[in-house]
Amino acid sequence: KNVGKFKPTQLLTTSLCPVVASPLAPALSPLPLDPPCALRSVLVRVRGLGLGYESDEEVLFKFCSGACPHHRSNHDLALSALLQSGLLPAGGAAAAAAAPCCRPTHHEDVAFLDNHHRWHKVEKLSAAACHCVG
Amino acid sequence: KNVGKFKPTQLLTTSLCPVVASPLAPALSPLPLDPPCALRSVLVRVRGLGLGYESDEEVLFKFCSGACPHHRSNHDLALSALLQSGLLPAGGAAAAAAAPCCRPTHHEDVAFLDNHHRWHKVEKLSAAACHCVG
Repeated sequence: KNVGKFKPTQLLTTSLCPVVASPLAPALSPLPLDPPCALRSVLVRVRGLGLGYESDEEVLFKFCSGACPHHRSNHDLALSALLQSGLLPAGGAAAAAAAPCCRPTHHEDVAFLDNHHRWHKVEKLSAAACHCVG
Repeated sequence: KNVGKFKPTQLLTTSLCPVVASPLAPALSPLPLDPPCALRSVLVRVRGLGLGYESDEEVLFKFCSGACPHHRSNHDLALSALLQSGLLPAGGAAAAAAAPCCRPTHHEDVAFLDNHHRWHKVEKLSAAACHCVG
């Protein structure tokens, strides 16, 4: 299983839907350090998940990130060129549509104690497997 | 069919994978003008597509953009909170993973004449249908 402890320096170079190299579009080169789409994990306090639970307990939150460079079509390459040239509005969210996205294919529940010693279980809170979709 | 002529002022307010409202995460409110995931189109010169063709012919390039607010899981809401709070590296591409992505489900070929009067057909260049995936 491809589960790695979260490293900020690694994730900072990660692009979920990066521009990739192609003989048809040599200008669209990837960052050399773009890691592939994979399951990653980070230890976080439950209250940091923004779900409204008063709990300082730490849980292992797993999520999907990474590049999907081997799944891009002529359409994706053209859309990347239009976004980069400003013929379409640029922006991270828009650029993300120019390639498949690294998304969870399976989830798992996460259980924890709140600060009043009550158990809670949040269904499908953590990712369990990732794939390039779209 | 949901095909609209491309309007910059419309697309500028579009987020492909936006943060959306939720009773669990009231802080994560969408832009009120976020349009839903849909097929859009723009008239562009073939050379602007960055595929290496010398052609000043204009083609109708169709692509997918828009919000997928009704497909988000507990995992997506938690990931959005971690990204917004800086507990994970922020950024458009990373944030785009916190919701399903608006991507083509079908494509269509596009034919055009280059500046030397030769016909070319690029397979699956234009989107033909869109869906929120992941």
